[in-house]
Amino acid sequence: MGKSTKISMAVIRRLPKYHRYLGELLENDIDRISSKELSERIGFTASQIRQDLNCFGDFGQQGYGYNVRELYNTIESILGLYKEYNTVIIGSGNLGQAVANYIKFEKLGFHLKGIFDKNPKLIGIKIRDIEIEDIDELPGFLGKTNIDIGIICVPKESAQEIANTLTKSGIKAIWNFAPVDLEIPDDVVVENVHLSESLMTLSYRLNEANLFKKEEE
Amino acid sequence: MGKSTKISMAVIRRLPKYHRYLGELLENDIDRISSKELSERIGFTASQIRQDLNCFGDFGQQGYGYNVRELYNTIESILGLYKEYNTVIIGSGNLGQAVANYIKFEKLGFHLKGIFDKNPKLIGIKIRDIEIEDIDELPGFLGKTNIDIGIICVPKESAQEIANTLTKSGIKAIWNFAPVDLEIPDDVVVENVHLSESLMTLSYRLNEANLFKKEEE
Repeated sequence: MGKSTKISMAVIRRLPKYHRYLGELLENDIDRISSKELSERIGFTASQIRQDLNCFGDFGQQGYGYNVRELYNTIESILGLYKEYNTVIIGSGNLGQAVANYIKFEKLGFHLKGIFDKNPKLIGIKIRDIEIEDIDELPGFLGKTNIDIGIICVPKESAQEIANTLTKSGIKAIWNFAPVDLEIPDDVVVENVHLSESLMTLSYRLNEANLFKKEEE
Repeated sequence: MGKSTKISMAVIRRLPKYHRYLGELLENDIDRISSKELSERIGFTASQIRQDLNCFGDFGQQGYGYNVRELYNTIESILGLYKEYNTVIIGSGNLGQAVANYIKFEKLGFHLKGIFDKNPKLIGIKIRDIEIEDIDELPGFLGKTNIDIGIICVPKESAQEIANTLTKSGIKAIWNFAPVDLEIPDDVVVENVHLSESLMTLSYRLNEANLFKKEEE
């Protein structure tokens, strides 16, 4: 690690991509890679890569490249992936079910411990051996189960109320899929997945060429 | 619009959030707002807001605030939301179904025209009146239907092949949910939703305090 200044979120958001590419290299038994080669694979410039990784210490040697395993382990450690996390999903519509069924999360150390919904038609159904429980049981469940991350997959109207229940029980991390900005205590972190925003960015980029062509005419 | 320099992606990625908040103001019949008030609601600094909006022209008057409707319409136009888009979903597992059922996309002008899968158990099932078709029918469908956006919800192993089929048929925009970076022609735009990366960022932030505390000790 080495440096105690806070790392910028832009760097942090690139780390999972390093993690994914380095993981693939390891799967292919590649244990050393030059910053040039890594750059070609990952699509960041070599200087960007050096700059990013320098935030966390000294990696790589001139003319010798990066030790893939060492770099992978360090990034894994920075991302907090050396730990295990217990998660709970609130809202078991299609999106909640999609997240619940995402096996990769288990492999990364995120363990699903409960699924809650208010829809009587869904309560009792099992997803990956976990029975969907009545949302009214959530506070009791949180009181007796050690949960690290609450995953909110309910409609936006109910999201804040769920967030309140989660934070009151002491949960410090929320993964929020509802299209709303949650108000949460300062010591809680939220990561939003706002699908509409991603789709709008796509439509912007699809039109961008026309937008600026029109202006230049 | 006014300026012909390319807008940075950081600004673009904030626009959907402006769009959402301004839309909520309009729903509540608020037609004028100061940059200070907007700043308090949206959580960006007033100077950040002024800077962002200045990229697109002159909005707001000193001491008078922003005209909400005008600003909303301009952002809608910049984001390309004044148009209608035809979309197709490939992969109708939980995630594909979640996206297919997201009614809000229709309201924004994104119309689902087809859903394809290779799983015989899913082919023939209807989602929102659209029958899931055999993936083998995709090229034929693309040949006779005008599709603007291809939405990839297949596992990562098949994602590149699907992307090839889509771009060969002339599609210029891909919304990619597969955890892989697609190789696509220069004139095609891709927007990725990489759920694992978002989750890893959350676990980083959950541990960040400890990470730096340890170092400072």
